[in-house]
Amino acid sequence: MGGIQGSEGTDRTDRFADDPAFAVHEGGKLRVTPTRTIDSIADLALTYTPGVARVSSAIAAEPGLARRFTWAPRVVAVVSDGSAVLGLGDIGPAASLPVMEGKACLFSEFAGLSAVPIVLDTQDVDRIVETVAAIAPSFGGINLEDISAPRCFEIEARLRERLDIPVMHDDQHGTAIVVLAALRNAAKVVGRPLSDLRVVVSGAGAAGVACTKILLEAGVGDIAVADSKGILHAGRADLTPIKEWLVGNTNQAQFAGTMIDALRGADVYLGLSGGSVPETAIAAMAPDSIVFSLANPIPEVDPEMAAKYAAVVATGRSDLPNQINNVLAFPGVFRGAIDAGAHSITEAMKLAAATAIADVVGDEVRADYVVPSPLDRRVATAVAEAVAACARQEGVTA
Amino acid sequence: MGGIQGSEGTDRTDRFADDPAFAVHEGGKLRVTPTRTIDSIADLALTYTPGVARVSSAIAAEPGLARRFTWAPRVVAVVSDGSAVLGLGDIGPAASLPVMEGKACLFSEFAGLSAVPIVLDTQDVDRIVETVAAIAPSFGGINLEDISAPRCFEIEARLRERLDIPVMHDDQHGTAIVVLAALRNAAKVVGRPLSDLRVVVSGAGAAGVACTKILLEAGVGDIAVADSKGILHAGRADLTPIKEWLVGNTNQAQFAGTMIDALRGADVYLGLSGGSVPETAIAAMAPDSIVFSLANPIPEVDPEMAAKYAAVVATGRSDLPNQINNVLAFPGVFRGAIDAGAHSITEAMKLAAATAIADVVGDEVRADYVVPSPLDRRVATAVAEAVAACARQEGVTA
Repeated sequence: MGGIQGSEGTDRTDRFADDPAFAVHEGGKLRVTPTRTIDSIADLALTYTPGVARVSSAIAAEPGLARRFTWAPRVVAVVSDGSAVLGLGDIGPAASLPVMEGKACLFSEFAGLSAVPIVLDTQDVDRIVETVAAIAPSFGGINLEDISAPRCFEIEARLRERLDIPVMHDDQHGTAIVVLAALRNAAKVVGRPLSDLRVVVSGAGAAGVACTKILLEAGVGDIAVADSKGILHAGRADLTPIKEWLVGNTNQAQFAGTMIDALRGADVYLGLSGGSVPETAIAAMAPDSIVFSLANPIPEVDPEMAAKYAAVVATGRSDLPNQINNVLAFPGVFRGAIDAGAHSITEAMKLAAATAIADVVGDEVRADYVVPSPLDRRVATAVAEAVAACARQEGVTA
Repeated sequence: MGGIQGSEGTDRTDRFADDPAFAVHEGGKLRVTPTRTIDSIADLALTYTPGVARVSSAIAAEPGLARRFTWAPRVVAVVSDGSAVLGLGDIGPAASLPVMEGKACLFSEFAGLSAVPIVLDTQDVDRIVETVAAIAPSFGGINLEDISAPRCFEIEARLRERLDIPVMHDDQHGTAIVVLAALRNAAKVVGRPLSDLRVVVSGAGAAGVACTKILLEAGVGDIAVADSKGILHAGRADLTPIKEWLVGNTNQAQFAGTMIDALRGADVYLGLSGGSVPETAIAAMAPDSIVFSLANPIPEVDPEMAAKYAAVVATGRSDLPNQINNVLAFPGVFRGAIDAGAHSITEAMKLAAATAIADVVGDEVRADYVVPSPLDRRVATAVAEAVAACARQEGVTA
């Protein structure tokens, strides 16, 4: 049979030939295949009619059987409206697809789950919620991805409320889980409890909000959160509801200055904003400081410069040690939630995931090894087991 | 890693152990996998960040590149609201999933396309249209499935109007294409042109309407369509819009009686309704009659009885000759439309598909071989090529 890939792929003047990323994406990165072959009329009569009718009838009579006899519980929808894709911004659904396909590849590779990219031709909050709710019976979990703040908060909250399957916005919670895991181990390296640490979070978007929340839950001493206009404090007149919540729960001294000012004497810098932090600001942090600079591909703090002052440096880059990569979290989190039949992903499950990631490093922890490699196959298993155990303990299981 | 399949599958008192259909469905029938493995940090950096950002940027700048560098053009959504599933009726989305998974298996097996079941938690026409339109950028085609009449007509029409990818309600057009293919060859067996034939269609639902339309387009002489209240004619006071259309285009003599009455002297019986037709009615048909009795698993006309009177008998059953099975049509139709970059599936493309199916039988045609076997791998290729050629000729290509 002819195809739509052939002629284009063999174009001798292909302008994409020099970049291997394009070769990897030729024809897309995913495929749906049957789990069993159909070689005979008998196979056809079991996979499709008339045999399938007996299975559908059984599920109609006893809905719980869908968990055993359909693929849905093992499939995660990777849902995006393309509004905040990587560092590229609002590039729309079609251009966001390679990212969602990549995410789906990682669900398969690391957690043995199927995942399907669902990119949406709308950025309207109501319509996104209605759409995802309508297709939800097709899936066992909803991974929201690359949806811009503050819409991402409302969309996630409404879908969590409405659906009885796990829903998680990975840009928020995947990042937060891995940051907490890394900070647990970084605190070990410098020999201090989390409750001692004063943290400056640069960025009050999806990741900044979620990281701040999970660090507070984990018992971090104090956090000052900065958006593009400086540190959030009660005197600011321009606060969204989520930023008002942050003001009420962070910045104990109600410091009102720039992010750079706030770094003076701080123990931890968590960069989730892009931009550039000057050397003087890093030099002014407390001794044995911890710098997590996660903007990609260009960290806010130059890692070589940071290493002159900080005890632990982590980035989002794959070519440096201590890569803070969400792939350490989301495959195992969804796998654990699904294995346990959990109806949602709770705060306790996220904390358990962070501890499990940190514990894979265990006694080998050192300044350049505070998180496992993204390829470490032990991580997803450990996270899934911890999350499932937590879900069962919390009683949120099916 | 633990799993959700293991413990249940090994239950020694499993009440489903005696039916192999359940074994085939254990854990679901589909899987999504990456097309390339991720074994190194370099693989990860190409499949996911940072490499994926270059591909997404390229598509954002030049949207046509999505056709080459994403999987979407090669993925068909198999969409159902579970309202008219096989002969089981309105069993809802979860119970319909095994059927949609089966359909997706067939897309993969016969056309090399990926397909994803999307079952909907709504039966509201507006909401179905909005939902499918919202997720459409994720897919290269929409196969509507097992949606009850008359809602199926409006849903298909509105989505065809709104989307620029192929949309087809298979219960209508898949069935119609295969019925026309079978009738072309059956007419050859009895040595008569289609224009000579008087057809009685039993059933004015999705399949009845679409079969009637395609047979009229193919030049069948006259058709009388029956619903549960008898033959549709202008004197009926209870007609829906689509039945009014049928009345205006069928039943030249405006015969006003029962389906059984209409069979007297008719050349072709097309059963799409279930129920039972008495032997006397079949005996009263014209000499060399043709009986297509497609209710499944129990045909409206007993095939052994029909063989006493009819020159050609076809059913929907896999254990009898001449199985009228949609799998002969839909994989190749979508593959051809997608290969050509068609924005829709036109009437001409459906007629071309029917001819291609009939032509696979070719000179070997005989009374018990008017359609190819559902397993005949030549069919989807022939259909895809014919549909793609027709699309290119019509100029509906990308």
